[in-house]
Amino acid sequence: MRFISKVQSLLAFPRNKFQKCQQALSSTMSQKSLDISGIYPPLSTPYNKDESIAFDKLEHNLQKWNQIPFKGYVVQGSNAEWCFQSWEERVQVVREVAKLAAPGKLILAGSGCESTRETIRMGKEMAEAGAHALLVVNPFYFKDGMTSDALVAHFTAVADQSFVPIVIYNVPRNTGMNIPVDAIVRMAQHPNIIGIKDSGGDITRIASIVFATSSFDFQVLAGSAGFLLAAYNVGCVGGICALANVIGEEVCKLADLAQSGDSKAARDLQLRLVGPNSCVTSRFGVPGLKTAMEWFGYYGGPTRSPLQPLSDTNIQAMKAEFQKSQFL
Amino acid sequence: MRFISKVQSLLAFPRNKFQKCQQALSSTMSQKSLDISGIYPPLSTPYNKDESIAFDKLEHNLQKWNQIPFKGYVVQGSNAEWCFQSWEERVQVVREVAKLAAPGKLILAGSGCESTRETIRMGKEMAEAGAHALLVVNPFYFKDGMTSDALVAHFTAVADQSFVPIVIYNVPRNTGMNIPVDAIVRMAQHPNIIGIKDSGGDITRIASIVFATSSFDFQVLAGSAGFLLAAYNVGCVGGICALANVIGEEVCKLADLAQSGDSKAARDLQLRLVGPNSCVTSRFGVPGLKTAMEWFGYYGGPTRSPLQPLSDTNIQAMKAEFQKSQFL
Amino acid sequence: MRFISKVQSLLAFPRNKFQKCQQALSSTMSQKSLDISGIYPPLSTPYNKDESIAFDKLEHNLQKWNQIPFKGYVVQGSNAEWCFQSWEERVQVVREVAKLAAPGKLILAGSGCESTRETIRMGKEMAEAGAHALLVVNPFYFKDGMTSDALVAHFTAVADQSFVPIVIYNVPRNTGMNIPVDAIVRMAQHPNIIGIKDSGGDITRIASIVFATSSFDFQVLAGSAGFLLAAYNVGCVGGICALANVIGEEVCKLADLAQSGDSKAARDLQLRLVGPNSCVTSRFGVPGLKTAMEWFGYYGGPTRSPLQPLSDTNIQAMKAEFQKSQFL
Amino acid sequence: MRFISKVQSLLAFPRNKFQKCQQALSSTMSQKSLDISGIYPPLSTPYNKDESIAFDKLEHNLQKWNQIPFKGYVVQGSNAEWCFQSWEERVQVVREVAKLAAPGKLILAGSGCESTRETIRMGKEMAEAGAHALLVVNPFYFKDGMTSDALVAHFTAVADQSFVPIVIYNVPRNTGMNIPVDAIVRMAQHPNIIGIKDSGGDITRIASIVFATSSFDFQVLAGSAGFLLAAYNVGCVGGICALANVIGEEVCKLADLAQSGDSKAARDLQLRLVGPNSCVTSRFGVPGLKTAMEWFGYYGGPTRSPLQPLSDTNIQAMKAEFQKSQFL
Repeated sequence: MRFISKVQSLLAFPRNKFQKCQQALSSTMSQKSLDISGIYPPLSTPYNKDESIAFDKLEHNLQKWNQIPFKGYVVQGSNAEWCFQSWEERVQVVREVAKLAAPGKLILAGSGCESTRETIRMGKEMAEAGAHALLVVNPFYFKDGMTSDALVAHFTAVADQSFVPIVIYNVPRNTGMNIPVDAIVRMAQHPNIIGIKDSGGDITRIASIVFATSSFDFQVLAGSAGFLLAAYNVGCVGGICALANVIGEEVCKLADLAQSGDSKAARDLQLRLVGPNSCVTSRFGVPGLKTAMEWFGYYGGPTRSPLQPLSDTNIQAMKAEFQKSQFL
Repeated sequence: MRFISKVQSLLAFPRNKFQKCQQALSSTMSQKSLDISGIYPPLSTPYNKDESIAFDKLEHNLQKWNQIPFKGYVVQGSNAEWCFQSWEERVQVVREVAKLAAPGKLILAGSGCESTRETIRMGKEMAEAGAHALLVVNPFYFKDGMTSDALVAHFTAVADQSFVPIVIYNVPRNTGMNIPVDAIVRMAQHPNIIGIKDSGGDITRIASIVFATSSFDFQVLAGSAGFLLAAYNVGCVGGICALANVIGEEVCKLADLAQSGDSKAARDLQLRLVGPNSCVTSRFGVPGLKTAMEWFGYYGGPTRSPLQPLSDTNIQAMKAEFQKSQFL
Repeated sequence: MRFISKVQSLLAFPRNKFQKCQQALSSTMSQKSLDISGIYPPLSTPYNKDESIAFDKLEHNLQKWNQIPFKGYVVQGSNAEWCFQSWEERVQVVREVAKLAAPGKLILAGSGCESTRETIRMGKEMAEAGAHALLVVNPFYFKDGMTSDALVAHFTAVADQSFVPIVIYNVPRNTGMNIPVDAIVRMAQHPNIIGIKDSGGDITRIASIVFATSSFDFQVLAGSAGFLLAAYNVGCVGGICALANVIGEEVCKLADLAQSGDSKAARDLQLRLVGPNSCVTSRFGVPGLKTAMEWFGYYGGPTRSPLQPLSDTNIQAMKAEFQKSQFL
Repeated sequence: MRFISKVQSLLAFPRNKFQKCQQALSSTMSQKSLDISGIYPPLSTPYNKDESIAFDKLEHNLQKWNQIPFKGYVVQGSNAEWCFQSWEERVQVVREVAKLAAPGKLILAGSGCESTRETIRMGKEMAEAGAHALLVVNPFYFKDGMTSDALVAHFTAVADQSFVPIVIYNVPRNTGMNIPVDAIVRMAQHPNIIGIKDSGGDITRIASIVFATSSFDFQVLAGSAGFLLAAYNVGCVGGICALANVIGEEVCKLADLAQSGDSKAARDLQLRLVGPNSCVTSRFGVPGLKTAMEWFGYYGGPTRSPLQPLSDTNIQAMKAEFQKSQFL
């Protein structure tokens, strides 16, 4: 019943975007429809000097990104600084990216809010704005209250109410917590929860998620290029990698090598990517990411406050890292 | 200059609420105006079963709270589940409380957002809605980027732009980080940053903040009744205590005893408060708080999702704790 | 039965040291005998340049410490660098201090080892060497295995087998874990476990221990001068304070003020102590402690490797802190 | 010069054990001699019911282990409960294993102590007892003092004084800290530090160590079967895996598959190993490991106190995990 009403909802929002999804739903209820395997950059949001969104620069960047064999784009992930944007801005950027993306690119939109009700509402708006799936970070302000039961209830309600499939987003560096594996296994059985992006980098945990959900048609994506090869090797089907904003071709190439069986070439490229990847994630964060984007012809620009620009010392340290790996 | 424009802004918003503040500003620029010493409950937000805000229940609760010698009310602190509310709701609750509060009660409103720009904007709306001061939690999504420099820049910008004074809010249990003491000392010198609420419970840290800011006219408030006596004894001037939602008279009495010199009576009461306090904070969170409120004639009601109601086992455990301390 | 064999053991080791303990045991089984209230320095161990123990320097220091109204001495606490000493050295230092201590000073010896069997054996040797009580840090190498049940079993076995009373030692900074409060409450009921030194500084936790054990004749000692006043105010009976190695008179004075009711003077002194205390503990550790000791006429000397001497920058920072508090 | 004296020391201890090492040293000074690639079980220490070491059971187990294509044995790693043993026992077990090991098996002995001087002394005794290399856990009691400089000084002194090569041992679950990567890179250049066992499971960190030390002839070993495949794929040369005590053939097979290029078979086996591996490490620790050993014909026996035996519930949970992976 719950599910029928969801299909009806889908029919009430007939858009090409949902074609694949609808087909799947109409054929087999329990079959998950959307293949999310592949590489995605979690798009950084370009700002002007006054911190307003620079939509022209977004277009410039997307023209370049559209040339790269990405499976699609993650919009409003952590690197988009979604947390610094108003409700309207969050949706608006999704709409713009959906418009500017090359045909066939999948749009995964970060719709997570602290409350279940707002997460549902944001998801609806983002789906209407063109998202093919929602990347939903878990609530984390009340960490102690986010038990497995609370998380399962939250994600179930969100998935029940969503016109498009849900991808769970686990990012302990930002949330200060890990979604328990037992909760993930329970969620993976929901017909509208199709995967997880895990950014924690604990490969044992990732392998245990893959193993425990292997019978559920649940897709696991690596949350960083730092452990992308390892993730593929334990059964992940892709990655959402900040570094792909900067050197997307290389990240896609690693994904190809990881699946090709050329383990020597895969290893060599993975090892070269680790240093630059750390720079644009754990070491220097979004300011680092935006600085590095400039080196490769993208518009990086400032972050919103309170994030601070990189110091010259840090810029030099980051440059050295890219040079050591021969990307500069 | 920066400050002059702020005074001008104040003049542009002439309201009774700001009288004390304006007087202070007009007399001595560097003098801080607002005495925030005393006890505050961080008001819980009452919800109906459908999770809409129950303003009638808020009025019911405030009629009872108004009888207690609180210095004022914290609106939209963590216990208000502010993170589950829309932008408009956050402001609306401040407006209602300002209207319903007994004359003379100070309204401290939680205006923190992740971005500097939204924190400023929220603060303006809350000040217009009746807040006498703003309780500003630090941004924490990008924990690694929240260096002392970033935090000082953020709070300085917020304080520069605010019509009403700023109280810093440090709550590591929710944010997953501590505002560094060196940053606090720098902020304490800003004429519009008048104090801090520290909920961490590290009394050595709190004492070091008191000592390091003792020449700056900076007021330190304890963030919990669990260490309220200790906090007074190292120079704090009050407390914002979840437990005051439930047994406010007792918390106010502890504050009196702490200042009276009757150390034996103060200790005895403090020790009795620790168990119940832990129940409504670290052990059972907001669901615990709301459950306990019901026992004392307040409307507790449900939390918003994803927070879950207390299990019967936990309700019994909490009841035992209140009984052990002879409050039930 | 268990207990009778312990008394027999006591009779088998008739020494003056145990007189008080024996009397207590012979009169009322459940009565705890040893009053441990008061201030103790956890003695630093003096080393020569070749890292051998400088017993002559220990004597020099003790002659000075003996002039201060300490309740006694903690030998082989964390600050003694016990973890860097051989089995024999650990015992030998206890023997020397017992010999050199002024009459009436209580000797608390740190006998904790990872295994239960070695902790028991070490305790026996230290008791024979002159310890009046044992300060037993919990095992912590296998943190996940140190459940409440495991800890209660460990401390019970140790207390059952010890000729002298046991004081539990909780020091999360070094052990990376906290002994759960429920375990402490269970241990506090053992006739030979007479107290705890808690170095964590979480005053709410300390208050909850005091409250929960108040009917058990169990004494709680603060583990640092940083929160000594707060600890007294919630019912602690003393403190084991690294800073007492350096400025013991001041720490004893704070203890007096804390109990005298002169809350203003107590607060002022406590606030002055926080900065210097942090220097010789969390900020600069044992190298900081030994450096500061030199400033006050004690022999500090080098630490054992791998601890490194303080840099000049850090020495200056520490000096500034002592000057700011007017101890230099 | 430092190095010459080390060679002289080697000559002063002429034993067959060091043959390979000596040859290497005599040919090229800077060349590291010992190939440590391959799989090792970190041997659990069998105890009798009275907690004395059961050397007969050790022999029984080794007869079985000797049939498995292990590269060698780690003696006195964390799983050996070395921390519960006396100085003499630690050495004695190394001597026994060296005697009972099949010819050609490499003996890596865990010689880490908190102090530099004792680590050196322990290493000498273990080398004389038959260790071919030393696995040296970093000191961790004074976590804050264990800066990169302190750690480099410690490991350098240990390596300078050791007759046999040093393998660094990083095990944050037990030590509560990570050896910084920059320190590892500095140590990797020492001619007598030949590798690291990293048990943390952060594959990005492991990859960055491999990459940063790739020009130094430094070998990286995975510290657990949970991420063994991932580790091989980023350039590790082997693993020291608790699970190899239990189902060593399977762990060795995974190592073969990881190197063979049969990525599908490697993945399938890796995924099956994750659950059982977690049981004998993070979930149930050494008690879990010893319980599982019994299922496969080894003597497990009790742990030393304070570790507690597994509850029946946990035994069943562990059994289910082994069954789910079809090892039982």
